[in-house]
Amino acid sequence: MGKVERKRWSEEFSEWYNELIETAGIQDKRYPVKGMNIWLPYGLKIMRNIEGFIHAEMERTGHDEVLFPALIPETEFQKEAEHIAGFEGEVFWVTHAGHEPLDVRLIMRPTSETAMYSMFSLWIRSHADLPFKIYQIVNVYRYETKHTRPLIRVREISRFFEAHTAHDSFEDAERQIKEDLEIFDRLANLLALPYIISRRPEWDKFPGAYYSLGAEVMMPDGRTLQIGTMHNYKQNFARAYNIQYETENGEHEFVHQTTFGMSERLLAAVIAIHGDDRGMVLPPTIAPIQVVIVPIPKKNAEADVFAYARELAEELRTAGLRVHVDERDIRPGRKYYDWELKGVPLRIEVGPRDVEGKNAVLARRDTLEKVTVERDKLVDEVRTTLDKIHENLYDRAREFLEGHIKRVETIEEAKEVFEDRRGIVEIPWCGEEKCGLEMEEILDAKMLGTPYPEGKAKAPVGKKCPVCGREAKFIARFARTY
Amino acid sequence: MGKVERKRWSEEFSEWYNELIETAGIQDKRYPVKGMNIWLPYGLKIMRNIEGFIHAEMERTGHDEVLFPALIPETEFQKEAEHIAGFEGEVFWVTHAGHEPLDVRLIMRPTSETAMYSMFSLWIRSHADLPFKIYQIVNVYRYETKHTRPLIRVREISRFFEAHTAHDSFEDAERQIKEDLEIFDRLANLLALPYIISRRPEWDKFPGAYYSLGAEVMMPDGRTLQIGTMHNYKQNFARAYNIQYETENGEHEFVHQTTFGMSERLLAAVIAIHGDDRGMVLPPTIAPIQVVIVPIPKKNAEADVFAYARELAEELRTAGLRVHVDERDIRPGRKYYDWELKGVPLRIEVGPRDVEGKNAVLARRDTLEKVTVERDKLVDEVRTTLDKIHENLYDRAREFLEGHIKRVETIEEAKEVFEDRRGIVEIPWCGEEKCGLEMEEILDAKMLGTPYPEGKAKAPVGKKCPVCGREAKFIARFARTY
Repeated sequence: MGKVERKRWSEEFSEWYNELIETAGIQDKRYPVKGMNIWLPYGLKIMRNIEGFIHAEMERTGHDEVLFPALIPETEFQKEAEHIAGFEGEVFWVTHAGHEPLDVRLIMRPTSETAMYSMFSLWIRSHADLPFKIYQIVNVYRYETKHTRPLIRVREISRFFEAHTAHDSFEDAERQIKEDLEIFDRLANLLALPYIISRRPEWDKFPGAYYSLGAEVMMPDGRTLQIGTMHNYKQNFARAYNIQYETENGEHEFVHQTTFGMSERLLAAVIAIHGDDRGMVLPPTIAPIQVVIVPIPKKNAEADVFAYARELAEELRTAGLRVHVDERDIRPGRKYYDWELKGVPLRIEVGPRDVEGKNAVLARRDTLEKVTVERDKLVDEVRTTLDKIHENLYDRAREFLEGHIKRVETIEEAKEVFEDRRGIVEIPWCGEEKCGLEMEEILDAKMLGTPYPEGKAKAPVGKKCPVCGREAKFIARFARTY
Repeated sequence: MGKVERKRWSEEFSEWYNELIETAGIQDKRYPVKGMNIWLPYGLKIMRNIEGFIHAEMERTGHDEVLFPALIPETEFQKEAEHIAGFEGEVFWVTHAGHEPLDVRLIMRPTSETAMYSMFSLWIRSHADLPFKIYQIVNVYRYETKHTRPLIRVREISRFFEAHTAHDSFEDAERQIKEDLEIFDRLANLLALPYIISRRPEWDKFPGAYYSLGAEVMMPDGRTLQIGTMHNYKQNFARAYNIQYETENGEHEFVHQTTFGMSERLLAAVIAIHGDDRGMVLPPTIAPIQVVIVPIPKKNAEADVFAYARELAEELRTAGLRVHVDERDIRPGRKYYDWELKGVPLRIEVGPRDVEGKNAVLARRDTLEKVTVERDKLVDEVRTTLDKIHENLYDRAREFLEGHIKRVETIEEAKEVFEDRRGIVEIPWCGEEKCGLEMEEILDAKMLGTPYPEGKAKAPVGKKCPVCGREAKFIARFARTY
């Protein structure tokens, strides 16, 4: 990594990121299909830790795990008009099997609404079946024509999380969205990722949704990355797929539906936001190795150092920590380099003097600080330090995010932000699509939407929409996005 | 289930199996693509338990987990001649993306050799990289034209396990096959599944393999089901994909390769082999619920029974068991019916008399026996009983398998076996393909191959091949297969 300086506000972020994905062992991009990458063992381990938390949260909140087939018949896919309009230009088509053309062409799922909802109409019968809550983590496909980027914009999203729920009322669906937001918040804390939630403008809703929420993080180059979405579909899909239930009074009504989506972009955000010139910096919560111990042998003292390192490791493992002793026959400096690249949050160095003095040197990955601790206090010190690392990762990312949200009143001020250092601009808006789209055009930025929850979305009294000059109803957020 | 008698040796097995897959909550077969089914929550939980063991075994034996894309360019797929010949008639083709035809058509992986091995040639450089051992659990696709059957013969295998290894010598590849066999044996014990291993005849090897081993179980209708395969590829794929390494002497040599494959058929075997007229019978090792407690309240004593049930549950959970208390407001008989269908290995019934007497009634799912145990001894009794259930499942399946392997000397005897009760026929064989194929034809059965390890494959001295009358070299196994 040494060769690539990380210039947070320059185009070199992209180079830094792409190189790190490979050098840190996350993915291999040389697979011979554009936009489809190979998960390498280390990257997959981190992702599995993130997924482990998601599975646990799903269980906690009463979602059942299912697995649907990856192929959807064209005929099912076409049932919801907005949905098909939104996706048909970017799906992969399976047209032949063996040597014959298929009677009905199949679509590789870009998302699973159209695969799932004809089954919902069979599974859901009565109010007693509601709320109905399922989820899956699967591979989905999108024929991206824009520039692809590992974990961020790909043609095969291998780790796509989608929860789908059905409810007996709009209010219960709204409760579900609140639960999704709470789960997302817990997950974001686990990853030490501060974020903002916006309600998407009408023209940028998920195809078929009544409204869409998006969760964004701030990438080091000042662009935002959407890492979570929650959609309230109202009864749109229920009508298209005829998902009805019998009420307590024996009437038949359409269910209300929601979805909650996330993906491997969670890992992209962790890598981009916490990393530095030396490589990744992983939050201890998801690091496959939380503590790496590097023995620093000197001639005539080797055995002691290795034995001591193994002893410390055993003690830390007993305390529930994920520990690795690097006993490779290479120089310590090379080991530091490798584990810093891979983002191990804490390194412990032990030399002959530490063995004698019953000490150990802790080196933090986030601040690169070193402190010597007594062996007796090792477990406690390691635990405390890991907590501090997590806190520090979160705090510095939050400071960065907050420092790059700027509230302005005029188009000129907004333009300045994007010329200067990017970030998110908050600006008064009348609420008309025409004015919103015009601002997108002038700023060459996307409207993320209005701040959520709704209480934060209202413009202060007296503010004007900078495009039409009328009274502003909302605060609108704009950003350059991934 | 009550309606379908399970007649082990009749065609009704098929009806029994198909119905159970749905009633026990394993899969839903109503998805609108033939041969592609939906994993339901309960079935998926069992499968996840099986996979958990596989992941642990892979970690124990130093295999790294990876994830490759599901699509393979036609150009990569065509590099190994036998492989493409073996698969091209049964793959799904992706020919279009968005509104345009693709420049290079993509194949939905039927297995991953051709996806992986061009990357192996980049990853493997030197003898120090060997042995190289990776695996993945992914969805694969086969355009089956035969009758499809859930978990057994499907067009989307959603849970396909494949380990791929590379070695510096034939001997080291052979050691890998031994390791695979050992892992398989541990897994089969976990599932209480007795099995046999055969070395496939030349005409039925995996396309591109030097030799193939298959592991078979005996299904209740006397047909065999292949639930595991191990292949030694020698250098066949290494030559096609140019996978070379530098030896210690600086020479370049092709690697030797092996693969090890399994799938959701493991679960099919568990369901078919252990189940009975009342439903599934799950080995305690993989049952999502090992013990279900059913309170049997009587008027005026309700609270006590439920509180007592919860107390017992807590005690068993503390001991590390997976326990569920069924507190639904329905009759106990209905609860018994549900949990027997779902194969919960042990039921505990508690009524007011058990509360008073500090007892509990244990009802085994495998034998349907009931015994009353003292509360103080509950944890021990439950543990012992679960072990006994596992042992009994294994023993009765082994007895069934052994009772249906018949060694014969003439075609007439072999024909009788298949007319009578099916099973596996072992018969002397000269080793010539012509004679083997003729026996397949006459018997309307498949040659599974010769017994493995090789020591067991030799025909006793003086035995003749029943087709050509020459001295027999081998014992060949024949069966009707799934």
